[in-house]
Amino acid sequence: MSSSALLEQISTFMNEQIPFQKHLGIVVTKFDAQQSEVRFRWQDQLVGNAPMQILHGGVTATALDTAGGVVIMASVIERLKQDLPADEIVKRIARCGTIDLRVDYVRPGRGKEFITTATIIRSGNKVAVARMEMHNEDGMLIAFGTGTYIVG
Amino acid sequence: MSSSALLEQISTFMNEQIPFQKHLGIVVTKFDAQQSEVRFRWQDQLVGNAPMQILHGGVTATALDTAGGVVIMASVIERLKQDLPADEIVKRIARCGTIDLRVDYVRPGRGKEFITTATIIRSGNKVAVARMEMHNEDGMLIAFGTGTYIVG
Amino acid sequence: MSSSALLEQISTFMNEQIPFQKHLGIVVTKFDAQQSEVRFRWQDQLVGNAPMQILHGGVTATALDTAGGVVIMASVIERLKQDLPADEIVKRIARCGTIDLRVDYVRPGRGKEFITTATIIRSGNKVAVARMEMHNEDGMLIAFGTGTYIVG
Amino acid sequence: MSSSALLEQISTFMNEQIPFQKHLGIVVTKFDAQQSEVRFRWQDQLVGNAPMQILHGGVTATALDTAGGVVIMASVIERLKQDLPADEIVKRIARCGTIDLRVDYVRPGRGKEFITTATIIRSGNKVAVARMEMHNEDGMLIAFGTGTYIVG
Repeated sequence: MSSSALLEQISTFMNEQIPFQKHLGIVVTKFDAQQSEVRFRWQDQLVGNAPMQILHGGVTATALDTAGGVVIMASVIERLKQDLPADEIVKRIARCGTIDLRVDYVRPGRGKEFITTATIIRSGNKVAVARMEMHNEDGMLIAFGTGTYIVG
Repeated sequence: MSSSALLEQISTFMNEQIPFQKHLGIVVTKFDAQQSEVRFRWQDQLVGNAPMQILHGGVTATALDTAGGVVIMASVIERLKQDLPADEIVKRIARCGTIDLRVDYVRPGRGKEFITTATIIRSGNKVAVARMEMHNEDGMLIAFGTGTYIVG
Repeated sequence: MSSSALLEQISTFMNEQIPFQKHLGIVVTKFDAQQSEVRFRWQDQLVGNAPMQILHGGVTATALDTAGGVVIMASVIERLKQDLPADEIVKRIARCGTIDLRVDYVRPGRGKEFITTATIIRSGNKVAVARMEMHNEDGMLIAFGTGTYIVG
Repeated sequence: MSSSALLEQISTFMNEQIPFQKHLGIVVTKFDAQQSEVRFRWQDQLVGNAPMQILHGGVTATALDTAGGVVIMASVIERLKQDLPADEIVKRIARCGTIDLRVDYVRPGRGKEFITTATIIRSGNKVAVARMEMHNEDGMLIAFGTGTYIVG
């Protein structure tokens, strides 16, 4: 499979095979084997503290875990042989999973749009680690964190 | 305000003022100043890994943060003077917030219902810490974690 | 190698091959493939806050990581074939390593003796997770935490 | 007290009132209210894995917690009124403490010298958060982490 076909394959997986991400309106906007970016817009149903109008901590955790998962999957795929059939690639991605996640909440989750980036810190054939940051549309740091993932 | 009126006040806050919890169908089933329990049922839209049919890590993080937040809020209220007006209580609860959260994913998130319990480990007038566990309806441990919260 | 010879092999490794543990006076007092216990006594040089006479957070982290490492190593060895030569066992143990560690400090580290226990929570052939608690001689919970380990 | 006298006061505290830091040879090399740097040299007694010649995870945790603690203390002092008597400053510093610490171990701890830097991420009047990184003398990232601290 060509490299562009591969990327399309991954995008399809990410947009179709992760229902909860879709449910929250989290969209993958960039990724390669080193970094990823996901975005979502404010919605009233994502609020965790209505009097204060602040995002639920679980929404932030979801965005961080999603961005981390995307870059981990991309890095796993990059290591695979280029001619692997598409269904085998999906099988490999599906074996990836979060082992643990830490989220540090820096500022109240307020804004119109939230941009979460992830960077690979450790990339092994058993375990991979990614570091994530979430900013709002004004560039304010809302949260950061680290995820440790098992890779197939 | 009487103790039972107080509990009703808190329940109302938790069920009405946390839209994201409601959106995911997470219901507070028990709480006092030491422990809390929240539950939600499987829904296809909560899936993070469709080929494997596993909950999204962000859903688990949301359940843990919710259970932790509930017990923290109950413990904050317990410390307040009994005759505080209801709107003052809401103000105090609204000032609580998660500082950091760690989630350890032990087994794939599969089941019909998920029960998350939280226990207060540290309860100060600045910071409180809760420990959480999520099991499915068969009593299988799916995840555990710790949350550190700022209290008003 | 017999089972008792195996245990002796491990004990020797733990007491001779981990200089920092020895340096702090941390002694492995119990272990099997599910749980471990390590102990150390108060020493003035372990203090992190002299005016308050409290253990350094790094000492507590060391005790937790040590207890976690011990139970992980024991669980790795249990999975090995019984007739593996001793030097091969040492090689396998030496490949284990901490991926990440979280420590929650519950109470000031004060006491005469500190007892840290670890329990295996997840035991895979790539990754293992242990949960740890440290008490003083009066049974006061000083700290708890979680370690994620890579296994050979 | 003048600003330079203040800095000297802090340095004295850090070098004299933290015995465990001294015991491991960890020296504070830079600090202000935003960032800090601590250094230590390889010593055989700091090893956690003798066959592999790798630092004990607890040593790394100690260095990270120390760097984080230093920047937190500096930031607390910066907020104090300039004319506070020296013993009052010591009292304030002594009230600071680590609530929780996460360490991510990226590469085996090998090198001649280890440089740990900390940056303040959140600085409140109840809680402060610092992010830390440890490199060896070749600039290799060995570990990073986050500490949450209570401030007096």
